[in-house]
Formats: sequence, structure tokens, C-alpha cells
Amino acid sequence: MKKTKHLLAKRQGITESDVLCRIEEFAAQTRTRSSGLHLGIGDDAALFKVRSGFDQILTCDWFLEGSHFLRDKHPPDAVGWKCLARAVSDVAAMGGVPRCFLLSLALPTSHTGLWLDQFLRGLRRAALRFGCALAGGDTTRRQDILINVTVMGEVRFGEAVLRPGARPGDAVFVSGRLGEAERGLRLFRNSKGRPNSRDPVFRKHLYPEPRLALGHWLAEKRLVSAMMDLSDGLSSDLRRLCAASRVGAQVEAAKIPGVRLPKGGRRGGATALDLALHGGDDYELLFTVPRSKLQHIPRSQYGTLLTAIGVITKERTLLLIDKAGRGIPLPNRGWDPFRNHR
Amino acid sequence: MKKTKHLLAKRQGITESDVLCRIEEFAAQTRTRSSGLHLGIGDDAALFKVRSGFDQILTCDWFLEGSHFLRDKHPPDAVGWKCLARAVSDVAAMGGVPRCFLLSLALPTSHTGLWLDQFLRGLRRAALRFGCALAGGDTTRRQDILINVTVMGEVRFGEAVLRPGARPGDAVFVSGRLGEAERGLRLFRNSKGRPNSRDPVFRKHLYPEPRLALGHWLAEKRLVSAMMDLSDGLSSDLRRLCAASRVGAQVEAAKIPGVRLPKGGRRGGATALDLALHGGDDYELLFTVPRSKLQHIPRSQYGTLLTAIGVITKERTLLLIDKAGRGIPLPNRGWDPFRNHR
Repeated sequence: MKKTKHLLAKRQGITESDVLCRIEEFAAQTRTRSSGLHLGIGDDAALFKVRSGFDQILTCDWFLEGSHFLRDKHPPDAVGWKCLARAVSDVAAMGGVPRCFLLSLALPTSHTGLWLDQFLRGLRRAALRFGCALAGGDTTRRQDILINVTVMGEVRFGEAVLRPGARPGDAVFVSGRLGEAERGLRLFRNSKGRPNSRDPVFRKHLYPEPRLALGHWLAEKRLVSAMMDLSDGLSSDLRRLCAASRVGAQVEAAKIPGVRLPKGGRRGGATALDLALHGGDDYELLFTVPRSKLQHIPRSQYGTLLTAIGVITKERTLLLIDKAGRGIPLPNRGWDPFRNHR
Repeated sequence: MKKTKHLLAKRQGITESDVLCRIEEFAAQTRTRSSGLHLGIGDDAALFKVRSGFDQILTCDWFLEGSHFLRDKHPPDAVGWKCLARAVSDVAAMGGVPRCFLLSLALPTSHTGLWLDQFLRGLRRAALRFGCALAGGDTTRRQDILINVTVMGEVRFGEAVLRPGARPGDAVFVSGRLGEAERGLRLFRNSKGRPNSRDPVFRKHLYPEPRLALGHWLAEKRLVSAMMDLSDGLSSDLRRLCAASRVGAQVEAAKIPGVRLPKGGRRGGATALDLALHGGDDYELLFTVPRSKLQHIPRSQYGTLLTAIGVITKERTLLLIDKAGRGIPLPNRGWDPFRNHR
């Protein structure tokens, strides 16, 4: 957060240092004893000490206006929350714990006031919830709102759960209900003006909860053979997990925990199964469990449903077993948010 | 580099997986034994082991079309080189050594072919030169070319050189010649069409060399009390170093090593002193040396000129001493590349 080549907000009386000041104040509020930061914002780079016995996890994610959120529709605090939640979800998917993050932020001058305040409010809530302190970043002025978040996390040596590792016979599990974020997105996008962001139907689209405690617990107890987060939709992500493990899978349509749609509320829209198979942005966990460990997987953990939806197969295809017991190839239709808006 | 919400290049026969494949191949070529990476591209996040006895350095930088480079003017390999060099320079400024980096890349479909190849070629040259392996990142499709680079480095416990630390009486040093990048930028921008990027006058603008060996040597030998890299120009950056150290400085105009301008070649442009004071993007080092250590600073180190240009003062002002010995306040006019192009 030291370099700011393109000074923000020369006009309108707001200066770059005002913006940095606010971000620095914000950073202090996110710092905890456990973040390991010696040095955050204000120098050439952040400096931190890692704990011995741990591997470091590094991940980053784009969060771009027009691609991932709409400036005039999405509440700024949801933008702040979600840009961090998305990246933190990758740490959850490794079984790790986040420690600190870098924020790269490009803003138009018009958004350095109220918008930035609300954005930081949502980001702070997320940072405190996830135990992830702001360590630094880069700011610049730009017509579009551009965000990139890097998260640094840690995982005890040998505990990280990777995508390769699923073996034929392992059960395929998902956490939570799938398709809720997608349904929220559709309703949100189709609503007029700026929708009420407190409506529970939008919660998972606006304020996703990365499954940190669950991922960490599964890794620590060594219950899973492979794991990843569901960011693009089950039909795309299960394919990736299987490809990495060089296996296939069969999933049962009737077992997939989908979103509960109101009766008669389809109005020609997607079914709960479609939403669950192809909806993105749920940030639930997809994991595989060897048979010998099945008895240790509860129905829910930390208040999150855990559901066995199928089995890993040696044959490298993805099959969806319908309610009549027929297997049909699972199409790859993971959702691309806002694709229709580009 | 696992998530790609917005599939690149559905049109034109190029698929996202082609792009990822090329980046993955590239990543393998940048990996060295010392990078510490257990796991690079292909999972939810990168995983690496730090060496004991070292602090970790984290830094990131935007590199955006229109703000930091021009799509039709800057050679793609220079874009690749410079996006990494800029971020690595922050590691040099702490006295550290880079280990790995994350690449966030947003590209239009039209640039997933030759442009991407040449970009990766420049990036690979830089990654190998700086000993910095590609660990992961995020790709997406976008109309503008957007780049964000995060670098992870390391520095031995207690060896990091920070901005606070300069004391009254310390000598102020710079490495190299200042203003060369700025002069290159001006000539480059004013040249017609796509200039010959091999012309030495453009070298420092297109292919800056972060002072890694020098920064590391100064830190290891404990010769410096404060250090930062010169990215925005001496008049802005010296101000930041002094503010962090709660001191002021006097610099002598006659001592500042500027760019050598051809005789009669000014044509109403900036003087060498103006370029040196306010030109950005040099990525040289600015550092302060206690008097007791002055005898250990050579005239040049690793082929780079080291020049004492002034002294740190107790009084918290920045003075430029002109050739007649008069002190005038140093204006804050660090350069903002392409500001005039927005």
C-alpha cells in the first residue's frame, strides 16, 4: 500500500493520502496477535514471520466491476466482504487457516468517499470474521473499479488437502446446499433498482461464508482424500477434482442438496437440480472420503450440512444418476457470473 | 491459476485450457530448486515451505493498460518483464530475495495468441533473472489488459531494511543514474508507431533492473539505516523516506547522478536535473548510511554507481542545494506515468 503511481482523487478535494489514511486505519483494525505481521502498510512491502511447522498457502482472485459485480447494483459492503471471502475460500479448500491479505484497489475519484467507506466496512467485517489482517497492497485511480486480493495462509506440514488424492470407491461429499448463490444472483439481477441486500435470499450471493472451520477440521482429522471449493458449480468443479485425481465419479441427482424453491415459484426458471449442478459462487466444499473414514463424517458439522452425493469411479467419466436409476453424462455447464452482462 | 470464472477465448478457437496450459508450461520453466514450491498451478492455491530463520516479504503491484503501458505501443515482452520487475523491486528495497510470484491476468480474446506468447517470454526472462518462480494466480477475460503481480520474498531475521531508521547526519545515497526511465518514456511516447524497443535509450523504461544483489548486499552487511526503491521519483520518494524516519534532508543538485543528455538535444524538454528529481520508474535504490559506515560504501557495486547526494537533517524539510550553494525547498513532483494519456 505504499506505491500509488496514479494519485487518487486530485479533484473533489480528496487526496491520495486521505484514501491511504483510511485504508491504514482500517488495516490497524483488522490486525490480531496471531497475524504474524511485523510490518504492514507504509513500507515497500509487508513483513511477517511464519510459524514453524507450517507450510504457507498463497492464492489470489480478481474481483472486477462488470465481471464479478455491478457498480450500481451491488452494495459496496458486499463487494468488500466478497472479494476477501472468495480468496479465503481457497485457503479453506486446502484445509488451511488464513493469516493476512494484500488488497489491490483501483477506483474512480467518485468512489473514494462513501463508496470506499462502505466497501472497507464490509471488508473489515470479513477480515475480522476470517482472522485475516490487511498487510498491504496497491492503490491507483481508474475509471472501472478493479479489485485483486491475495491471501496468505498456513497449514501444518503434511495436512494440506489437494485435488489429487481421490480413489475409486471414495464417497463424494458436499457441504451446505448448492445453487443458493446462483438463485440469489438471478433474483438480484432481475430485481429493479438496488435490491434490499438484507433479504435472506441474496445472502449467499452477496455474503458467502467460506467453510474455514470445516475445511480445517476435515484436514486436521485426516478424513478426506481430496478437497476443493465449489466456486464455478459442481458440474465444472467435480470434473476438475476428478481430472486431478485421474478418476471419474457418479453422483445421484436425488441426493444433491439443492436450494428450496417456493412452490409454484419456478416461473420457467431453472430447477433446483440445475442450480445445484451448474450454479457458481457457493463457496461450499467438495471432498472425497475413503470408506474406512465414513463413520467419522457427521450429518452436519459447525452447523453446515454434509451430504454424500455419490462415489468416485475408476472409469474416468462423470455420470449423473437420475431418479429412475439411469446414468447420463454430466454436462460441463458451470456458471460464469454476469456473462450475459458483458 | 485454478479459477477462471470468465472463460478466455471461447471464440477464435482458443480455449481457456489452452491458455492455462501455456501458463502452466511457462510456470514449470521458471521453477528452480530454491523456490520452495511444493505445489504450483493446478490446485486451489500454491503451497510452499519457507526456510527457517527468515521473515517473509509480501508485495503486489498493479500493471494496467492505459495507466502503466499502452497496448499498441509497448512490446508485450516488455510488459511481461516490467510487471514482475516492479514488484520484485520492493523486495530488493527491503534487502530481501524473491522466491515466487502470483500472476493475475485479464485479457481480451484477441490477446490470447501471439501477444500472450510474447508477454510470457518477457515474464520468463524476468522470472529466471530474478530467481522468482510462478506459483499461481488467476485469469479472466476482459476488454482491457489488466495485470496484478504479487511477489513473495524472504529476508533473514533482523536484516530487513525499512524506511524508518534514517538519522540526522546519515548520508543520502542513490544507486545508478536517475531520470533515465523518464527520459526513455518521453522519447518512447513521442515516437511514431511502435518504436524500436532495442534502442538503449528505452532500455530502462522498458526493462528496468531491480537492484536485488545491491539491496541484499547492503542489508546483509548492515551498511544502511533506511532504504526504499525509487519508483515515483526522488522528490516524492525521499519525502516518504524522511516522513517515515521523522527527519528531513538536504540534497545537492550538483551531486545527483542524472541522465546524460545529448548536447543541444533539449529541444525545450526537461533538464537532466528535472528528470532526476521528478522522473519515476527508475527502480534504483535510495538509502541512508550512518557516518561510521561510509568508508564501506564503494563508488560502485555490482557494476552500479553508488552516489552520496546529501545528508539527513533533524529539521523536517527537504532542501535542494543549488550550484550557488542556496537551499530551496524541493517541490513534490514525482511523475505519474501516462497521466496525460488518461
